[in-house]
Amino acid sequence: MDENEKRLQDRFTQLKGYLDSGDKKRFRKTYLDMHFYDQSTFYLTLNKAEREALYGILEPDEMGDMFDTIEDDNPQIPALLKEMDLEYASKMLNDMYDDNAADVLEHLEKVDVDRFLEQMPKNDANNLRGLLHYDTETAGGIMTTDYVEFHEEETAQEAIRALKKFAKTAETIYYLYVLDHHDDLVGVMSLRDLILLDDNDTLGEKMNSDIITVNVDAEQAEVAQVFRDYEFLAVPVVDHSNKLVGIVTVDDVIEVIDDEAQQDYSGLAGVSMDEANNDGPLKAASKRLPWLITLLLLSMITATLINHYENLLAEASILAVFISTITGTAGNAGTQSLAVAVRRLAVEEIDRHEFLKLLVKEFITGFVTGLVTGIAVFLLVGIWKHNFILGMVIGMAMCAAITVANLAGSFIPMLMSSFGFDPAVASGPFISTLSDLTSVLIYFSIAGSFLQYFVKV
Amino acid sequence: MDENEKRLQDRFTQLKGYLDSGDKKRFRKTYLDMHFYDQSTFYLTLNKAEREALYGILEPDEMGDMFDTIEDDNPQIPALLKEMDLEYASKMLNDMYDDNAADVLEHLEKVDVDRFLEQMPKNDANNLRGLLHYDTETAGGIMTTDYVEFHEEETAQEAIRALKKFAKTAETIYYLYVLDHHDDLVGVMSLRDLILLDDNDTLGEKMNSDIITVNVDAEQAEVAQVFRDYEFLAVPVVDHSNKLVGIVTVDDVIEVIDDEAQQDYSGLAGVSMDEANNDGPLKAASKRLPWLITLLLLSMITATLINHYENLLAEASILAVFISTITGTAGNAGTQSLAVAVRRLAVEEIDRHEFLKLLVKEFITGFVTGLVTGIAVFLLVGIWKHNFILGMVIGMAMCAAITVANLAGSFIPMLMSSFGFDPAVASGPFISTLSDLTSVLIYFSIAGSFLQYFVKV
Repeated sequence: MDENEKRLQDRFTQLKGYLDSGDKKRFRKTYLDMHFYDQSTFYLTLNKAEREALYGILEPDEMGDMFDTIEDDNPQIPALLKEMDLEYASKMLNDMYDDNAADVLEHLEKVDVDRFLEQMPKNDANNLRGLLHYDTETAGGIMTTDYVEFHEEETAQEAIRALKKFAKTAETIYYLYVLDHHDDLVGVMSLRDLILLDDNDTLGEKMNSDIITVNVDAEQAEVAQVFRDYEFLAVPVVDHSNKLVGIVTVDDVIEVIDDEAQQDYSGLAGVSMDEANNDGPLKAASKRLPWLITLLLLSMITATLINHYENLLAEASILAVFISTITGTAGNAGTQSLAVAVRRLAVEEIDRHEFLKLLVKEFITGFVTGLVTGIAVFLLVGIWKHNFILGMVIGMAMCAAITVANLAGSFIPMLMSSFGFDPAVASGPFISTLSDLTSVLIYFSIAGSFLQYFVKV
Repeated sequence: MDENEKRLQDRFTQLKGYLDSGDKKRFRKTYLDMHFYDQSTFYLTLNKAEREALYGILEPDEMGDMFDTIEDDNPQIPALLKEMDLEYASKMLNDMYDDNAADVLEHLEKVDVDRFLEQMPKNDANNLRGLLHYDTETAGGIMTTDYVEFHEEETAQEAIRALKKFAKTAETIYYLYVLDHHDDLVGVMSLRDLILLDDNDTLGEKMNSDIITVNVDAEQAEVAQVFRDYEFLAVPVVDHSNKLVGIVTVDDVIEVIDDEAQQDYSGLAGVSMDEANNDGPLKAASKRLPWLITLLLLSMITATLINHYENLLAEASILAVFISTITGTAGNAGTQSLAVAVRRLAVEEIDRHEFLKLLVKEFITGFVTGLVTGIAVFLLVGIWKHNFILGMVIGMAMCAAITVANLAGSFIPMLMSSFGFDPAVASGPFISTLSDLTSVLIYFSIAGSFLQYFVKV
């Protein structure tokens, strides 16, 4: 990689030289030879004057190729579009792959979207408006309409000839989608299979009619699962009457998989991963504080609960020594069970029957884990304090606290999921703070009942 | 999706019928028309007798196509291979894409690997042996050698003719890799560009010579980043003398991205996600216990620390009330900072200068977070207990504990990463258990110094 990077840096220096000296011809030659992603990396290093020079040198479609590779949530995009001439920007947006253009428009003010769309040919504008109306995290929200479709009576030769025309504009030409005379999707053919056909074979004869489709409303996680399973490069998206409305390509699915993983991870940590690397510490703190303060309030309930047992603590201050051991360990167990449950919910739907079965399983797992940990802590405390009754109290409390934390860790996300919420929102810190509360309650109840046996009067 | 699933279930019932009645012809027709992934799903539902009937019906290469889509860490694979005839299994492995075959062999005993390899033609066996020798989580470990290469003087027409031959065996024919007469990689051409060429254009003239490669030793996470950035369908892998040794395809990268996300997530939760959905509760408990017991021992150190302050607690049992609030909140803050640090380390290398800068940033973030949380708890405790000195003690302890937890949450993974360990191993539960210890120390030190002011004698 380092060699690639170095070569790229040299290229960028050279390009800036051409840009500053106004050598348009050399600039275009060097710039257009680069990968689109490298072009966009270069573009994002330029200052305003340099960018304006660039707009004078590149055609809108050349800008569009590069703009396709900029992440649509890049916060600079609105300002970049604003500094371009309105007509130039609209042409560029129109020349981008329409899924990427729609993603960019998604992040703009409504008035700006309309300004751009008004400049476009009516058909193209309507197409983009159609894409904008799907939920971002569904198949409709990530699909492109820049795919290639054929009719089943077309021959291999005709198809290849037509593909050459589409190769410039379609997002992929590696799959051909085949329609019947009702314009229903009836087959798929890969370019790999197409080049093996005889010139006069028709697509209808040789296509694969075992088509895997996704519905336009399907959640993006479901779409990603199809790619994982079938290892496709693209999947057709159909509407409710089974008409082909778009395709999802594998590059967009990689983004989806990253996003979904990020969401699960953020949930587990109780912090939004939107925290950009260049956020200052104040901004970072402001993003983390809401969760912390909410959890602080929850943990204040635990404090009032302990306060309720103050007399018990005054009598046996030794009890205070083990509060954090019990709450901490139960919290750890709850986090483990939460993580397992959230991952499972990410890949499968769970019906009522499964729900109960999983709870029973998690109850047993929690009890076994709690029993082993409880025996360990019984021995540790008994030996350390020469007091096996105290050890037993701590051990029993530990066992019960872990069992409850395990149950909560799987029950809460499953409950949220069954009500249609994202289970990943039940974060690790939330579960461990909640389990502090139940653990303390369990601990002091058990300790209270056995007090006379381990406090030597 | 549900419709797809239903249709598939019907198909499976039909296929089992053909298999039971011995209707080989119909079975083959229906079975071979399915997607490879659906074939493997069907295969994995069969019992031993049915599978043995299947081996009699399908050729080894037909089995190989399907076996390519089974996850290589499926624990059933060794038994499945054992029940096949040795010659049949070896042929099947040899007909699989070589990266998948190597992944399967990776999970077998050394003697079994040798038994299979001995049955193969020498060249093929050596090729697989070569792949087996790379680290699993590097470019070499995930690449395939089933790619298509051409020389720069070949024409478009010759290339297309040759591609038709390769279409059956190559893992992708959508990129052609172009070599010069030293057999050095000098260019790449996509099939998309190739079909636009005139018959007599040579590849050397029209290829893209701005090649992005990865080194055979590159970590898989680095390879995944190249796919994210450039949106390629495959990337060439070169050795130290820049010779092409293989390619990585996008389907393997999707697996890599899933694996890496899983590892980060497991680390944060302190639980291995290998826990299969069909693991019983005992097995699940046995996988979670090692972490829990290790952390229990760490938390016992916290207990001895609190024990050390038992006199203080006996004098002011009110202090016990806030132990879990302080340790819990600091643990939550530490987990947030850990999660942010681990994600950052996953996407960028951090040098010494960056290291310090990030620590300073995280110190400020921690201090600001701590200050705000501390003021909140100062007010809450002051008002609740009508004792603002006590509130101040808790607030100060909270502020310091959060600052320290934040620092630990980013320092520890960064330190691990700079020593070459995976930072994700520093799990959330580990950080929060560690921060219990520092929080308690801070809390009692501060409380001890202010004792006379808030305990009304």
